[in-house]
Amino acid sequence: MDSSKKISQAVIRRLPRYYRYLKDLYREGISRVSSKELSERMHITASQIRQDLNCFGGFGQQGYGYSVEALFKEIESILGLDTRYKLILIGAGNIGSALAKYENLSTRGFDLCAIFDVKEELIGKQLNDLMVQHIDNLKNYVMNNEVDIAILAVPHSATAKLAELVVGLGIKAIWNYSPSDLHFSHDVVIENVHLVDSLMVLGYNLKEKLKSID
Amino acid sequence: MDSSKKISQAVIRRLPRYYRYLKDLYREGISRVSSKELSERMHITASQIRQDLNCFGGFGQQGYGYSVEALFKEIESILGLDTRYKLILIGAGNIGSALAKYENLSTRGFDLCAIFDVKEELIGKQLNDLMVQHIDNLKNYVMNNEVDIAILAVPHSATAKLAELVVGLGIKAIWNYSPSDLHFSHDVVIENVHLVDSLMVLGYNLKEKLKSID
Repeated sequence: MDSSKKISQAVIRRLPRYYRYLKDLYREGISRVSSKELSERMHITASQIRQDLNCFGGFGQQGYGYSVEALFKEIESILGLDTRYKLILIGAGNIGSALAKYENLSTRGFDLCAIFDVKEELIGKQLNDLMVQHIDNLKNYVMNNEVDIAILAVPHSATAKLAELVVGLGIKAIWNYSPSDLHFSHDVVIENVHLVDSLMVLGYNLKEKLKSID
Repeated sequence: MDSSKKISQAVIRRLPRYYRYLKDLYREGISRVSSKELSERMHITASQIRQDLNCFGGFGQQGYGYSVEALFKEIESILGLDTRYKLILIGAGNIGSALAKYENLSTRGFDLCAIFDVKEELIGKQLNDLMVQHIDNLKNYVMNNEVDIAILAVPHSATAKLAELVVGLGIKAIWNYSPSDLHFSHDVVIENVHLVDSLMVLGYNLKEKLKSID
């Protein structure tokens, strides 16, 4: 792939999905797949698939399909899953705890290294093999350890202040589970996650489906 | 809004985001907002906003902006957040438990009514005010209670079988947190949620950002 070529965010957002489906195909021992077969599995149109995969170039051959292994490895490499990231978690409540115990993080290269909270009853609590530390230790920790990504799972009222603290300490990426969206202008990348958004979409689609049946 | 008009899924997926931002504006007592102001807050282009909101029609006025309250209420109504849904959870593990305790479900109209699992050590466990039941009770429960949406948070190996069971019992919507995507052809709506997908996108964007700084 020509690394100077800019891939659009819309394509980037679909990459994890290609990654998952290609991994399944690879595990099933399938060596080649056509855009039509991939389309049927993934429920994306074949033309969308061809267009997306053309961004990386050179993997499809007319009438012969894509090499599953080559494409899988290329997407893995584009996504940077061949490198490992060091994560800290701020907020060891309900969602934070679930993320701390989520085994798919480390299998995809994301290693949780420290957990912080402010609530006295949570400090010292063991989550997997990590002990929840007081947020007052955060600065010291970040100054003495490499941190790539901070997970923020804190209440609305604490989000902005903690995000500024994290960014001020030089952390360049935030995976934000807090109720408020974060936006930083430069040098910091953010993913704002709102679990209920997809449930609202599901509710809408259910309503429309039931209307069409009536 | 002309209810016969079909709104595209791309617009539907952005609706929860409009909903959240408009709710904030409404709470702040702001009565009108221009597409430019909304664009700056939401980090979506003003032209995208105008295009999206035109789908519902009649809320914008040239040089005068949108009525926050009218738009907020309209989106709330389109998303069906003025109705309540009854949910069951299958899988009381790590992610399932976090969802069961997630307060934003009921505040958005999604009431969790029963929890099922297959693991003996989880049966009888209390999650908020619900007791985890054995999956063998599922059929009986669904036959005697209204269920709109099933949350599936189970391992890969159990996903397909449980999804078929759920659909066989007449449930029309699945919020799927299992590692495998579900696709049903007709009458069933699905939202497949993969928490790590957005972390992979974050990892990619971090990598690109660091490259551009170097």
